[in-house]
Amino acid sequence: MNEYGTPRTDLALEAREALTRRTREDIPGVMVETAEDEEILITRVNIATPEAERMMGKLQGSYVTIEARGLREKNTPLQDKVMKYLADELVSLAKLPPKAVVLVVGLGNWNITPDALGPRAVDKIVVTRHLQGMLTPELKGGVRSVCAIAPGVLGITGMETAEIVHGIVSKIGPDLVIAVDALAAASSHRVITTVQLADTGISPGSGVGNKRFGLNKQSLGVPVIAVGVPTVVHASTIAMDTINTLQQHAAFARYFKSMENLSDQDRNMIVRQVLPETLGDLMVTPKEVDRLIEDIASVVAGGINQAMHPNIDYENIHMYLH
Amino acid sequence: MNEYGTPRTDLALEAREALTRRTREDIPGVMVETAEDEEILITRVNIATPEAERMMGKLQGSYVTIEARGLREKNTPLQDKVMKYLADELVSLAKLPPKAVVLVVGLGNWNITPDALGPRAVDKIVVTRHLQGMLTPELKGGVRSVCAIAPGVLGITGMETAEIVHGIVSKIGPDLVIAVDALAAASSHRVITTVQLADTGISPGSGVGNKRFGLNKQSLGVPVIAVGVPTVVHASTIAMDTINTLQQHAAFARYFKSMENLSDQDRNMIVRQVLPETLGDLMVTPKEVDRLIEDIASVVAGGINQAMHPNIDYENIHMYLH
Amino acid sequence: MNEYGTPRTDLALEAREALTRRTREDIPGVMVETAEDEEILITRVNIATPEAERMMGKLQGSYVTIEARGLREKNTPLQDKVMKYLADELVSLAKLPPKAVVLVVGLGNWNITPDALGPRAVDKIVVTRHLQGMLTPELKGGVRSVCAIAPGVLGITGMETAEIVHGIVSKIGPDLVIAVDALAAASSHRVITTVQLADTGISPGSGVGNKRFGLNKQSLGVPVIAVGVPTVVHASTIAMDTINTLQQHAAFARYFKSMENLSDQDRNMIVRQVLPETLGDLMVTPKEVDRLIEDIASVVAGGINQAMHPNIDYENIHMYLH
Amino acid sequence: MNEYGTPRTDLALEAREALTRRTREDIPGVMVETAEDEEILITRVNIATPEAERMMGKLQGSYVTIEARGLREKNTPLQDKVMKYLADELVSLAKLPPKAVVLVVGLGNWNITPDALGPRAVDKIVVTRHLQGMLTPELKGGVRSVCAIAPGVLGITGMETAEIVHGIVSKIGPDLVIAVDALAAASSHRVITTVQLADTGISPGSGVGNKRFGLNKQSLGVPVIAVGVPTVVHASTIAMDTINTLQQHAAFARYFKSMENLSDQDRNMIVRQVLPETLGDLMVTPKEVDRLIEDIASVVAGGINQAMHPNIDYENIHMYLH
Repeated sequence: MNEYGTPRTDLALEAREALTRRTREDIPGVMVETAEDEEILITRVNIATPEAERMMGKLQGSYVTIEARGLREKNTPLQDKVMKYLADELVSLAKLPPKAVVLVVGLGNWNITPDALGPRAVDKIVVTRHLQGMLTPELKGGVRSVCAIAPGVLGITGMETAEIVHGIVSKIGPDLVIAVDALAAASSHRVITTVQLADTGISPGSGVGNKRFGLNKQSLGVPVIAVGVPTVVHASTIAMDTINTLQQHAAFARYFKSMENLSDQDRNMIVRQVLPETLGDLMVTPKEVDRLIEDIASVVAGGINQAMHPNIDYENIHMYLH
Repeated sequence: MNEYGTPRTDLALEAREALTRRTREDIPGVMVETAEDEEILITRVNIATPEAERMMGKLQGSYVTIEARGLREKNTPLQDKVMKYLADELVSLAKLPPKAVVLVVGLGNWNITPDALGPRAVDKIVVTRHLQGMLTPELKGGVRSVCAIAPGVLGITGMETAEIVHGIVSKIGPDLVIAVDALAAASSHRVITTVQLADTGISPGSGVGNKRFGLNKQSLGVPVIAVGVPTVVHASTIAMDTINTLQQHAAFARYFKSMENLSDQDRNMIVRQVLPETLGDLMVTPKEVDRLIEDIASVVAGGINQAMHPNIDYENIHMYLH
Repeated sequence: MNEYGTPRTDLALEAREALTRRTREDIPGVMVETAEDEEILITRVNIATPEAERMMGKLQGSYVTIEARGLREKNTPLQDKVMKYLADELVSLAKLPPKAVVLVVGLGNWNITPDALGPRAVDKIVVTRHLQGMLTPELKGGVRSVCAIAPGVLGITGMETAEIVHGIVSKIGPDLVIAVDALAAASSHRVITTVQLADTGISPGSGVGNKRFGLNKQSLGVPVIAVGVPTVVHASTIAMDTINTLQQHAAFARYFKSMENLSDQDRNMIVRQVLPETLGDLMVTPKEVDRLIEDIASVVAGGINQAMHPNIDYENIHMYLH
Repeated sequence: MNEYGTPRTDLALEAREALTRRTREDIPGVMVETAEDEEILITRVNIATPEAERMMGKLQGSYVTIEARGLREKNTPLQDKVMKYLADELVSLAKLPPKAVVLVVGLGNWNITPDALGPRAVDKIVVTRHLQGMLTPELKGGVRSVCAIAPGVLGITGMETAEIVHGIVSKIGPDLVIAVDALAAASSHRVITTVQLADTGISPGSGVGNKRFGLNKQSLGVPVIAVGVPTVVHASTIAMDTINTLQQHAAFARYFKSMENLSDQDRNMIVRQVLPETLGDLMVTPKEVDRLIEDIASVVAGGINQAMHPNIDYENIHMYLH
């Protein structure tokens, strides 16, 4: 938890929820708008001031979340809809000219299933940078130059992901980097049901694997859009939530003298008691996480593909895939 | 939780711990003995009466757990030691003649990493039933006739695992079935650090995948030894533990009026609040579960191999592997 | 090569081609009919007499091959068409009542890519036997009771596949077994472009892994339809073809005195010279065999699914899959 | 075949064999020395002049092959011996100071089994560059700073491997690049039994995937040592060998008038007849290629690890692995 008592989450949406639950008032410098239909809720959170950045514990910038509880079921029409919304939001954040060169980077460790979203999504990206000479003129207008890599994590390569990406960016000179990563959520119901886009890039400390580095315009010299999906909740969040539930629900009030005064120190002591030696390493995931990661990687890659290549015939998208 | 308030666990050891914590006295009909060195703790729990069976929520019989916290590290000498202890305990439970035919069954779903222990272990079993005619006389004394299968789960095959195993047992006529399965623990520190052997076979409702069937002498007509390793804790157990911790530690007493009277119904209400729509499907696992499952599957298979084939040269064990 | 000089092939079609090329006349007791459109050629070979069985080196019965060279490209409409033809031929060979119970068996070794067709296809079979109680009446008419297993090969299980299948058949009592297997072809252009159905079951010695057993009505007590796809050509076939080409093409006649008299013994000596110590173990496959096996497994499973479950909505077929 | 009629091979050893078989004399500018024991044959080929480079179709430089037929069996002592020889030859080619930084690059496509040697070997490399600050002084002398990446092929990333490697080299500044790649051999008995080291780097057109680029001192600015293992023979090589065998063995002379005059054009016509539409795409591999690639990748990575980190305790090498 940060100084404002928000739980550990990579979603700006949840950081705001936690903060307003605590302070019970709006956060100055944070603008929110939502749009929804019966299956999907889109929330746009804009963190507009340094003070808001500090309170939220999230970088200044625009965050869009697309939530659809049905994503955990094998629901093809819903997956297609989320892909389309994701493509629209990505187009609107990226403001790319048709001739842009885009590098998609899949972050995370392919040997750790809930951290493997990035590499799995990169597998399904339609790469075209090497085909630009072969495209017909009519296709050319709707197929951007896309390349993609999953560089692997520090423990696998001995190199910071940021070093590898920086080296490649220097050589390739893309107009935009899209970084796909697995995130941690505060609420179990957001796991693999929510996609977040952010024009802030990747922050140090974020993601399932706790990135040690940032990937953003400052470090790479080109704009970075992060596309992430929460795939885990930290086990400590479950313990924390249990305490909060006890504390906040009037139904349990009769048991307590003074739970509203429970100090953060005592909270942490309880959590350490429950999750002792391995605190922070335990992840809560749905049992079918292997299949769900595969499915959501298709949705993420599909959305990126549609945003990058508006003219491809998506009936036959697999023909463009390696 | 069952009627005696024990948490959800497949370990007889933990069922007993929970019960004695609650009743603060010994359980009639349950015998316990332990042996330990500085790295490994062996506990033998014997459930000897129908009353003890009812209270523990575990079938009458012998349960042996081998615990070694170091198993989560890549510690080859410790893994070798656990293998050896596992082999010894298995030999002592199984009381097999040298010429016995043994069928090893790997339960669980290979598509769900924490449920894949059984199939992964079966991959590493030294099968010899088809080689019996080719063994030299001196080897023959120390290499039993072993066959092995991972039949897959109901959703994959459309057949109950028990049906498949029963069909094969009828055809093959083994003297013993060893069933390897992934289990759920109550304590996160036992996940992938503990191996349990039981001469009771597999109970309905047990395992990560909640078996609908039993595999035991009654259903198969031959003795069944279960070898299991906890690979998950149910997320609800974390919530439950948090409440118990609050309740039991004097340090927090000042916050409460009457937590000792917290009803089971209220407990469950809190847990459902924290883990609402997906209650029961959320699993807590170590982040590196993919690697850990692979490692512990080697330990389990290694122990079974040594128990079955005392004369094989384990320096070159891989030469016997497919 | 068998006594009539036919090369090593599991396709009845190719056995016949080789024989007629050699004898330059029709084979008594072998009936052939073909149907084709511009992309697909269907050939039905009926081996009707014991003499024909002996000459062809293939069991008496009906063999249908569906050939489509385009199957090696990622051509979805063609794949769909082949699936449909495969379903039609399967329905016509199987003559199943709507309420039949069907067991699909995936033969072969999942650790050897070109031998993994059976296991990969079984992965994509819509199993429904365990859901029969849950189907709505209108669905029930068009969804047969299907179960499926990939039992693994002798070296992995220590049990003959035929033993395992026989054990399961005894327990489950299916009306039909469909056995899916990877085959060897004589012509490289048939690799992964041809599907063969046969109402004769699986013969000993056939398949990439050279089955030691037969799976047929005699051994299992229920009818067995084999569905196979050639995934390899034996390397020795390439050497043999080279000699045949030299011998048969007038263009090269000036080099030879008497190649038409080349004895089978000399032929084999040349092949052993080219492929010495490892003769028979070397396989010729397309470079992209990993991807091609995955694609053709989908076609085979799709055809079986459509034949078994005529009423399923194949737009959403994945919803029925594990 | 190149202008001197040598078959398609990435091994300098085989290029020389073919050339001397043809010309029946030594090649000027090519020095050869061999060393052997009963299991292993080491051959050092030095191509010392531009003329020798042209005749051999291989870049000027030093090529070392370590051949051990037993490598296809699961023979641990032999694997350990080859590892050790490989380490020795690598040390002697690389002449690295103890403090050197080394980048290991795994070339090839992880989705194509016989092309996956590079990525699989990189998986087993002990990377240490990120740990340099944490090593004890006594370890530091014997553990070099190693990093590693398998960048993926053009069709997967949209970037030439050479671009990616060049970008990373610019950023990291290694003293040496070791490039691991799967090769094509001319003789089937060399497949997965031979390791080649070359101080020339990677040539365009080489490898299973036919690299379009070179990776060498000229293109990267640092020395590049290539470590390769043949994993395939092109199917056309089998056909070509068959013709050569017919032609060269006196035993068959009675069939021919004038095979010694068979033109290269006629040769190619025969091969195209045998392997028509897919010429060049068909690969000959051992049936167990999946397992063999895994085994040989361990040997290659083990040799590199020992050469780079002479002081690591190889009993516990896995403790250093991710």
